[in-house]
Amino acid sequence: MSQAALRATESQGAKAFGVWSPAVTALDDNLMIDKDRSIAHIRWLLKNGCHGVTFMGTTSEATSFSAGERIELLDAVLAAGIMPARLMVGSGCAALTDSVALTAHATAAGCSVLVLPPFYYKGISDDGLYASYAEIIERVGSADLKLYFYHFPKLSAVPITHGVIERLLKDYPGVIKGLKDSSGDAEGCAAYIKAFPSMAIFPGNELLFLDMLRLGGAGTITAGANVNAPMLRQVYQAFEAGEGADALQDKVNQVRRTLQNYAMVPGLKSVLARENDDPSWRRVRPPLTGLSEADGESLARDLKAVGFTFGEA
Amino acid sequence: MSQAALRATESQGAKAFGVWSPAVTALDDNLMIDKDRSIAHIRWLLKNGCHGVTFMGTTSEATSFSAGERIELLDAVLAAGIMPARLMVGSGCAALTDSVALTAHATAAGCSVLVLPPFYYKGISDDGLYASYAEIIERVGSADLKLYFYHFPKLSAVPITHGVIERLLKDYPGVIKGLKDSSGDAEGCAAYIKAFPSMAIFPGNELLFLDMLRLGGAGTITAGANVNAPMLRQVYQAFEAGEGADALQDKVNQVRRTLQNYAMVPGLKSVLARENDDPSWRRVRPPLTGLSEADGESLARDLKAVGFTFGEA
Repeated sequence: MSQAALRATESQGAKAFGVWSPAVTALDDNLMIDKDRSIAHIRWLLKNGCHGVTFMGTTSEATSFSAGERIELLDAVLAAGIMPARLMVGSGCAALTDSVALTAHATAAGCSVLVLPPFYYKGISDDGLYASYAEIIERVGSADLKLYFYHFPKLSAVPITHGVIERLLKDYPGVIKGLKDSSGDAEGCAAYIKAFPSMAIFPGNELLFLDMLRLGGAGTITAGANVNAPMLRQVYQAFEAGEGADALQDKVNQVRRTLQNYAMVPGLKSVLARENDDPSWRRVRPPLTGLSEADGESLARDLKAVGFTFGEA
Repeated sequence: MSQAALRATESQGAKAFGVWSPAVTALDDNLMIDKDRSIAHIRWLLKNGCHGVTFMGTTSEATSFSAGERIELLDAVLAAGIMPARLMVGSGCAALTDSVALTAHATAAGCSVLVLPPFYYKGISDDGLYASYAEIIERVGSADLKLYFYHFPKLSAVPITHGVIERLLKDYPGVIKGLKDSSGDAEGCAAYIKAFPSMAIFPGNELLFLDMLRLGGAGTITAGANVNAPMLRQVYQAFEAGEGADALQDKVNQVRRTLQNYAMVPGLKSVLARENDDPSWRRVRPPLTGLSEADGESLARDLKAVGFTFGEA
């Protein structure tokens, strides 16, 4: 990203926009976080199309790491010189106290946060969901807090309802910046955009990228960007230029649909292992399992068949 | 529990049996753990019918506390003189490293462990589930490990399959001691008992207590014991004596069915608040919400109507 583009990002104020990738996490042979390779991948994403990186989202296997591991990696990423404004830190855990610790740490570092609801209990009430977010906001107690909701009902089992968002926007004006909608549901995402014009709404699947931009969406935060960031950036630029976005979105869709035929995180890591000629990228932490070599080859063939070239738009 | 009974417990070797309660956790006015009141409740349970206490299960709101908070409370419980052999410590977290830390800590202290599978990802494979448990066992690396599986598919969304249990029993003989089945499914629980005679199988709902004892089950580990331990112990003793268990089980069932008409954890805490004349027992940590006063009164009336008297069998 050029310095000019970066200044443009900052001039739009506190809210994120554009192409964001929840970065996959590199592991060493003991399945612990490999900081250097993880940081190198974040650098690659920021140089190859991403406006920003979602640090420790679902695609990063965030919930498989302890709060301590997550804090240690973020400190290393920042120490490596990556700008906090380009990081949106996943900080929602099952335990309130972990969510508070991660949110406070990221906020103090100048990052925004993407906050999953507590995800163990099922069927929690709107009052319980409201209290979960309100307690984080109150306990962090910082005017610098920039909070994005993480709506991913298939995994968290806790949808972020309009009613809860309305109450939090009213009670904590200024800190709620947006929402990532990983439901894959176009109607639901459009409804968030319509209901909350003050918020940056990101579909969590690039299949909805252009459609939602046209409705007023902010961009996309998507796993696919880990391998396809350059092409996603082209869609965004074509949308801004008002020309050629549909054809590019069609190409993006073919890549995404191919990726979706395989387990997403192991699949992305398999692609990175091949393209970087580094088999250690295939490692995942349990309960995920790595793609078999045969599946990895099959995925590579399928991606080639739809014209995908790594690192090129 | 008498010293004679305690010796009898120990003489049965490493496997747990009888009535176990996943103890509810007392909170202070900042929703942090109130150690003294939590310990007092554990003492009450052990004096009033429980063979043992499950420390940090679902009913304890375990997943709402950080690994650090859980370790600190266990240390305080043990420092208060509660015997480690009477504690089964919930130690399964979303993050592998947290599960390893909690399992190692409890094992070093001489407790057994009740291990939830990692509960964020859905639809994980048997290989992923196997690896999750195998990594914990390998990393803890202690012959003192006494592991109970925690099967609670409605909340964890990850069933503990027979295939995974078979593989782990084969690969790690000696450390697998049993399973808590919180599915509420009688057929499934009976199938575990039949398939794994070397393991102590506990239904996680006292409605199945006597039926499963008769099939070879080990007892029950159940939320209801928090208020109904004395009556549960009577069922167990009547079963052992071979007389009168059915009538007692019928009384137990009426109490359980009444409790189930309300949110379980807030309901149990509401009963404890009334019976101990201590409104602070009503506190729960988000995402749970406390029972309204009206619901608390209604629950108390309903319990009275089925003949329930706190602290009496």
